[in-house]
Amino acid sequence: MTRTAGAEGDTSADNVGAHGGASIAPTPYVLTDAPGPLAHEELVALDAFWRAANYLAVGQIYLMANPLLREPLIPEHIKPRLLGHFGTVPGLNLVWTHANRAIRARDLDAVFVAGPGHGGPGPNACAWLEGTYSELYSDISRDAAGMGALFAQFSFPGGVPSHCAPETPGSFHEGGELGYSLLHAFGAVLDNPDLTVFCVVGDGEAETGPLAGSWHANKFVNPARDGAVLPILALNQYKIANPTLFARIPEDELMSLLRGYGYDPVLVAGDDPSRVHQDMATALDRCLDRIAAVQRAARDGADGARPAWPMIVLRTPKGWTCPPVVNGDQVEGTFRAHQVPLPAARTDDTHRAVLEQWLRSYRPDELFDADGAPVAALLDQVPVGARRMSANPVANGGELIRDLRLPDWREFGVEVEAPGAIKREATRVLGGWLREVTRRNPDNFLTFAPDELASNRLQDILEVTGRDWQAEIGEFDVDLSRTGRVIEVLSEHMCEGLLEGYLLTGRHGVFTCYEAFIHIVDAMFNQHAKWLDASAAVPWRRPLASLNYLLSSHVWRQDHNGFTHQDPGFLDVVLNKKPEIVRVYLPPDANTLLSVYDHCLRSRHYVNVVVAGKQPQEAWLSVPEAAVHCARGVGIWEWAGNGDVTGTAPDVVLACAGDVPTLETLAAAAILRNRLPDLRVRVVNVVDLMRLLPAEEHPHGLPDSEFDTLFTRDRPVIFAFHGYPWLIHRLTYRRTNHAGLHVRGYKEKGTTTTPFDMVMLNDLDRYHLVMDVVDRVPGLGERAAALRQDMVDARWRARAWTREHGADIPAVADWTWPEPGL
Amino acid sequence: MTRTAGAEGDTSADNVGAHGGASIAPTPYVLTDAPGPLAHEELVALDAFWRAANYLAVGQIYLMANPLLREPLIPEHIKPRLLGHFGTVPGLNLVWTHANRAIRARDLDAVFVAGPGHGGPGPNACAWLEGTYSELYSDISRDAAGMGALFAQFSFPGGVPSHCAPETPGSFHEGGELGYSLLHAFGAVLDNPDLTVFCVVGDGEAETGPLAGSWHANKFVNPARDGAVLPILALNQYKIANPTLFARIPEDELMSLLRGYGYDPVLVAGDDPSRVHQDMATALDRCLDRIAAVQRAARDGADGARPAWPMIVLRTPKGWTCPPVVNGDQVEGTFRAHQVPLPAARTDDTHRAVLEQWLRSYRPDELFDADGAPVAALLDQVPVGARRMSANPVANGGELIRDLRLPDWREFGVEVEAPGAIKREATRVLGGWLREVTRRNPDNFLTFAPDELASNRLQDILEVTGRDWQAEIGEFDVDLSRTGRVIEVLSEHMCEGLLEGYLLTGRHGVFTCYEAFIHIVDAMFNQHAKWLDASAAVPWRRPLASLNYLLSSHVWRQDHNGFTHQDPGFLDVVLNKKPEIVRVYLPPDANTLLSVYDHCLRSRHYVNVVVAGKQPQEAWLSVPEAAVHCARGVGIWEWAGNGDVTGTAPDVVLACAGDVPTLETLAAAAILRNRLPDLRVRVVNVVDLMRLLPAEEHPHGLPDSEFDTLFTRDRPVIFAFHGYPWLIHRLTYRRTNHAGLHVRGYKEKGTTTTPFDMVMLNDLDRYHLVMDVVDRVPGLGERAAALRQDMVDARWRARAWTREHGADIPAVADWTWPEPGL
Repeated sequence: MTRTAGAEGDTSADNVGAHGGASIAPTPYVLTDAPGPLAHEELVALDAFWRAANYLAVGQIYLMANPLLREPLIPEHIKPRLLGHFGTVPGLNLVWTHANRAIRARDLDAVFVAGPGHGGPGPNACAWLEGTYSELYSDISRDAAGMGALFAQFSFPGGVPSHCAPETPGSFHEGGELGYSLLHAFGAVLDNPDLTVFCVVGDGEAETGPLAGSWHANKFVNPARDGAVLPILALNQYKIANPTLFARIPEDELMSLLRGYGYDPVLVAGDDPSRVHQDMATALDRCLDRIAAVQRAARDGADGARPAWPMIVLRTPKGWTCPPVVNGDQVEGTFRAHQVPLPAARTDDTHRAVLEQWLRSYRPDELFDADGAPVAALLDQVPVGARRMSANPVANGGELIRDLRLPDWREFGVEVEAPGAIKREATRVLGGWLREVTRRNPDNFLTFAPDELASNRLQDILEVTGRDWQAEIGEFDVDLSRTGRVIEVLSEHMCEGLLEGYLLTGRHGVFTCYEAFIHIVDAMFNQHAKWLDASAAVPWRRPLASLNYLLSSHVWRQDHNGFTHQDPGFLDVVLNKKPEIVRVYLPPDANTLLSVYDHCLRSRHYVNVVVAGKQPQEAWLSVPEAAVHCARGVGIWEWAGNGDVTGTAPDVVLACAGDVPTLETLAAAAILRNRLPDLRVRVVNVVDLMRLLPAEEHPHGLPDSEFDTLFTRDRPVIFAFHGYPWLIHRLTYRRTNHAGLHVRGYKEKGTTTTPFDMVMLNDLDRYHLVMDVVDRVPGLGERAAALRQDMVDARWRARAWTREHGADIPAVADWTWPEPGL
Repeated sequence: MTRTAGAEGDTSADNVGAHGGASIAPTPYVLTDAPGPLAHEELVALDAFWRAANYLAVGQIYLMANPLLREPLIPEHIKPRLLGHFGTVPGLNLVWTHANRAIRARDLDAVFVAGPGHGGPGPNACAWLEGTYSELYSDISRDAAGMGALFAQFSFPGGVPSHCAPETPGSFHEGGELGYSLLHAFGAVLDNPDLTVFCVVGDGEAETGPLAGSWHANKFVNPARDGAVLPILALNQYKIANPTLFARIPEDELMSLLRGYGYDPVLVAGDDPSRVHQDMATALDRCLDRIAAVQRAARDGADGARPAWPMIVLRTPKGWTCPPVVNGDQVEGTFRAHQVPLPAARTDDTHRAVLEQWLRSYRPDELFDADGAPVAALLDQVPVGARRMSANPVANGGELIRDLRLPDWREFGVEVEAPGAIKREATRVLGGWLREVTRRNPDNFLTFAPDELASNRLQDILEVTGRDWQAEIGEFDVDLSRTGRVIEVLSEHMCEGLLEGYLLTGRHGVFTCYEAFIHIVDAMFNQHAKWLDASAAVPWRRPLASLNYLLSSHVWRQDHNGFTHQDPGFLDVVLNKKPEIVRVYLPPDANTLLSVYDHCLRSRHYVNVVVAGKQPQEAWLSVPEAAVHCARGVGIWEWAGNGDVTGTAPDVVLACAGDVPTLETLAAAAILRNRLPDLRVRVVNVVDLMRLLPAEEHPHGLPDSEFDTLFTRDRPVIFAFHGYPWLIHRLTYRRTNHAGLHVRGYKEKGTTTTPFDMVMLNDLDRYHLVMDVVDRVPGLGERAAALRQDMVDARWRARAWTREHGADIPAVADWTWPEPGL
């Protein structure tokens, strides 16, 4: 039915406006009988829903008044700024329409994911037709006034964005940054055996790396345990200004690709609504029958060979049903339909006339009654209650969330008779607790890792579960399981995206990753943080479980992997987000890591970033001490200081945040005790980085008075920090004693290959910290000058040793608190 | 030939060490006749090269002395820390060995890309055998002493990393963060018609999103204009702790996937070296014949239908030729061979004995002469001079780089009779100049965009070229071309990776992207910046063209796209890298953008980040003024201030960086002139953000004296900034007047939908800037209080207007400098 410019654009009695070339309005189509499962009446009703949704989408893009066209369109009815993307909307609405039929026929528990960008008008329209919009926003009533409000708010100041967002009923997937639709969909069905996700993937989005990798998520779906994702590839062939790759490779190549990804694709193609409706109904029936058969077999105990999951390739025109030709250019079915097909509808009479014809081509008078409500026949097609995709609580995960059953972390702590008396791999200790968390929460807690679970020392989890794996299992593979509660795949994007989908639908989890490579998902973190922020302002949204990162193999222990593996900058990215949303913890040892993580898994609606080492390192605090220290978030370690009497300021403060900086700080403190016993040294350890911010900038921020008590108002503070040093300045530049603060942290310095050599390369070593004290505390005299020279000498000795022996000098490697260790 | 644990591990006379289970050394294999193209002598010689490379790789991982095993191994010969990844090495070495045969047979101009992680020992070994290592590093001579040095330096303090790195001869691809091998390979062959890249893709790496998307890069390779990438998927089946997805799907599914990506895959599989050598030679011949035929046809003027490019799937055991069983566990052919197969070789006599047997299984006495040099027969197989992949100058792009022929930017500037007299889309003006850059540099300059070229207003480039597109071209597609010099694909990863590959091999380019979504490639930027940093310290590496970003559709003009599209934090990520490498520019208008970009395209070995708007906005500076201002990087705009007399400090400084902040600052200055004419106001504009850093921290940093002259030592400074406000504090916290600095910038605030509404939402508006002045300059009296109240009123009026009209209030929208505009 698509009319083309060349065919008739210049010869018919079309509108010719100020822009010169003809503009052609679409003509209303008549449904015809085509072969397929839909009886005529059902076809008519489905088509009515689709037309109504398309009408409402066009209205959102263009109209700020006169929503039902009860009067002729005049400029004042049209928004001054025309925003939104019509091109993808008819496809989205078609899928929604037919999904509704299937939901009713099969009593499906289903949700919808709109992958294509800025397709917001479609789901908004469907939610309004289903009544959900009006239930959640009383201003947006299901009548003429509400329709007007629905239109006016769209992409308008104070209104809703042009893509699906937290404000969108039934959406748990933000439509802003492209590439994550399948991941969110697959994350949603894990441990949701009765759930079906209709996931529309845009063929533009399909070009992104994350989306290209995420088709493989089907290898982690167990048809007995999990629900099903039905991907619908919306092959409308165009992006903003270009065709899509998927549309410009031969169809058999595309099908080969999708089969290679492990799917059994069904093609639905055309531009005649009557035929496409029949074909879409046929395809959906076939796919859902297949999913049901697969799930039934798996749940009846079949051997569980991985099925070829069904999917649909939907090839329909971009901007289907929009004006075919505008200003003499073909629009429908081309990239020109991507955004706003008639850009001058407010100022150009011809465009406005064509817009009115376009809107009327959907025959709104048949679709809406005198009050503006959808007619009954149309509503008959809509599922009821929570079966409506726009009202399914799965998309508002906080409604469904259950608290985790958490074992007492204290029972998993290590015995610490004296500070530093034993060494432990902190993440390994955490792994013992996470093993029990996994065991106690067999259907709502998952751990994700990019092939780094064991490398990050969390392998104890595997004592109670396996790694989820639905592909083949080879002779020498270990710990793979069809029901595993750990998902490992060498893709940070997949780990992040699947976990997000799992959290957004009301469950809990942890993502463990090498610190440097978490930057791979910077953008995904940003978007999730924005979702948390924006959704907190939507009254009907309920808080989600926090997104919990465990970053190990961190910058200070990447000596052997080298420069490429050294980057602590994720903390800087995180701290750019809304303070209410983000938390950063740097526990210095095993028991503090346990305490912090217990807190993280109890928390809601945050992003918690925890950085902790995996190598054996001193345990400083006993369980009770760790509990108190982590509750405070920052505190004086009296046992580590010297002569620091309550009520008087010390001579110098040694502050530290992070496990390696804490170790070096304590080693420096030990040297100072031994060599300058009269120097009053205070050691302050920071677990919760947010404590450094002013109280008015972060909920965890210390009041200035408390900060001044800890860090003094005027004494030198030598701060040994895990990350880039300027982050500490950024957090503290308003504090009284900021001028007294000297920070040592990581600088881009190149590779090295022993741990302490790495610390020395960045001047974060114990010797430099002691030198800093000598340089900054006035009046220390001769003995300090000698100490300073000893530090220089010791440092060169240590460095030379590593170069010769390929290992740390014994004075460092075998050092124990509180020896001076020189 | 793989022996397995179950089969014989417990029954044979194997070594049983402290760990209990048996450890079995590999037995030397004997070459047998197998069908294939290799005559016996050639087979023997190729195998010798392969064995030598494997021997040298094992030596690098384990030995710090006794490289030729001239005496029995003792603990002191073994490194104390065993690092490196053997698992992938035999596959890499096999490909290198056979590539050499093809290079000699066909006189190929070829380079090698090692995708699998930490495979450094392989390419290091091959480069040493080829003599290149010794040519570049005289200590690493091609004899026993040099072999010892090669071994000792590997993953050792002061030595080389465990993956391919700038230090690696012949490598232009860093092996640290996985996922970018194909992109770098494809970027290298663009405009390099005679180049062949043997690109080994790890099956672990293949799980990453960026790699999964990058197979489609073949749709941008024109066989007439470009060289060829031969991907070799190294299907060794395992990652660190897991099997790979590609190894655990049926072979026909994998082949279907690769065909769907547009390749014609050839399988080479086995564990018998004799057969694999023959099959690999056959496969390489077939693939290279096919590539030659495709290129010949295209260059002879064939119609250019996109070919199915050949590729190889190489299925060989992980850790092939290593000890099959260690401590009773199967190692060869499993994940246990991923890193160091015998982890206790220094301390466990059994492991050390097995290690010695393993090393001797390569028969080093046949491979190296009495001096430790490779025997002549082995060297006969090696290409000579620049035909050696380890010595190809393509991998040291700075050796081949040619300066761009740049048109005079001044001729493309806009006429500015008075500040703000005209409005221009800055990026569109830049597009005119880039059009001419593109025209004048038809074979060494490319522009990359994720479907955003026209959206970012650079479409004038398309007047002289098309978009590169080797897939089908549809009826309504425009501006696609087989020889296009713009590459558009909806993948920031592909844009970044292809451009990196192009730059690393000695060419120039620009990547234009929406500002918010450049975070998608944060990690890639990090790794490229680290490459630039590390390579600058390698004496034989020559400087590359800079990596140039043009970020538009920036945070202040994402009012309609909303919150998800608002993120200026890439600047924070960039500024964490080595100051010598990174540059950030915020040109305030069209002519300054031109001037800045001219500078960027002339520069070498930096990352230049330029942020500029695409909407019509005031042009402030004429061409000569822009030239001077950009050369300075920061300067006082005398015409915009009031009563600011040289030699005396003004009452207040209004500073700004970024186009929208500059506009608001000037509007505030106009109000102040009008309402407080006696107030001495200075306006300072910052183009080059690095000027704010202290001179000792960045080459562009201003000395404190100059900074103090511009910003005063003690007057209030109101700084309107494009990005997150704390970045300015981070850059300036050491400056004299830091306490006087008040920064307004972007905060995470949620969506809105008119430009000025967006500015108001973040309190960066002209009214707030005026209020800041009133609040911070002492002694302004009654008139200022009235002005402050007027600002509050005007702001609420402006806000209410946007809510009602969906557009900015005319007082703002139609404002012109120097009207007060209230």
